[in-house]
Amino acid sequence: MHTNIINLIYFLFMTKKVAVLVVNPVNGAGLFQYLEAFFENRIPFTTFAVADTTSVRTNSGVSLLTDDVVVNLRESEFDAVVFACGDAMPVFAENADKPYNQAMLAALATFGAHNKLIAGHCVGALMFDIAGIAAGKRVAQHPYVKAALKSAVATDEKSVADGNLFTAQTENAIWTILPHLVQKLTE
Amino acid sequence: MHTNIINLIYFLFMTKKVAVLVVNPVNGAGLFQYLEAFFENRIPFTTFAVADTTSVRTNSGVSLLTDDVVVNLRESEFDAVVFACGDAMPVFAENADKPYNQAMLAALATFGAHNKLIAGHCVGALMFDIAGIAAGKRVAQHPYVKAALKSAVATDEKSVADGNLFTAQTENAIWTILPHLVQKLTE
Repeated sequence: MHTNIINLIYFLFMTKKVAVLVVNPVNGAGLFQYLEAFFENRIPFTTFAVADTTSVRTNSGVSLLTDDVVVNLRESEFDAVVFACGDAMPVFAENADKPYNQAMLAALATFGAHNKLIAGHCVGALMFDIAGIAAGKRVAQHPYVKAALKSAVATDEKSVADGNLFTAQTENAIWTILPHLVQKLTE
Repeated sequence: MHTNIINLIYFLFMTKKVAVLVVNPVNGAGLFQYLEAFFENRIPFTTFAVADTTSVRTNSGVSLLTDDVVVNLRESEFDAVVFACGDAMPVFAENADKPYNQAMLAALATFGAHNKLIAGHCVGALMFDIAGIAAGKRVAQHPYVKAALKSAVATDEKSVADGNLFTAQTENAIWTILPHLVQKLTE
């Protein structure tokens, strides 16, 4: 009982809550590096499908259920947002007008406006750039989107932390930035 | 059409097929490092829940559907087996008699008897040891199970490849062995 109360206090006051954006399809290796690290460090998170329904799949074809969809994401309820990249992104341009993508960009803009923690890999830096929340900030990004960045400062680094922004080149570099992100989320 | 036929020939004759054992709960970061690498390298795989149903979840609480359950696994249809570890394993001893765990150990024994490729991380080496397929072979294993290994040769290495056996200490070391496993699966 005592332990439960301590856990409740810990949950309510001591930790930051993370909204995790799950594109469809999503790279499962990237997504679950974040989720398992949050779980192991008792960081509460909610997954939001960047899609019309909570039923999404990994690049590798495994069906997943997210907690909610991105149009229902209320930034005021979270302290941080994570963008989990995937094979939805090479066709982002043709789907940019879809309500779920517009909702994602609007949510990112709000997290940025309130200077909350923002993390993502691969094409994440481009999304942050489009959402207008990476101006003048150094980022790591997939080499394919380096030239597309407008206001963010592209680098060739595996990962970069600049202020509230944590970015990694690909899912293979997430482990280089994750300890720093976990530190920020638990301090 | 021409590409389709080439893909079909490739699928039928050129690649090895992998059975992936998914314990319940499973560490998603480990599981999806294998699955996304197999997907990206066009290595066909089938996921088998080490459970009574195909509905499992990750340590981090996300619901997943596997392709099948382990009692239906026929070793003759595959060239390799992967053991994806997770939070099911600290309570393995109390569930060792369950049909799904017995089926898993029997399947591992058969893959080993036919000298097929075997890979796994964390407690994987202990399962291979119990199944009798790691005798005299060097393995990497979670520090907690080092003392429990009987016929396998425990090491303190991040990952080890010894003959047909590929093992990694934890999910955080899978990336050090995965390129070698993918190489073996595509050659």
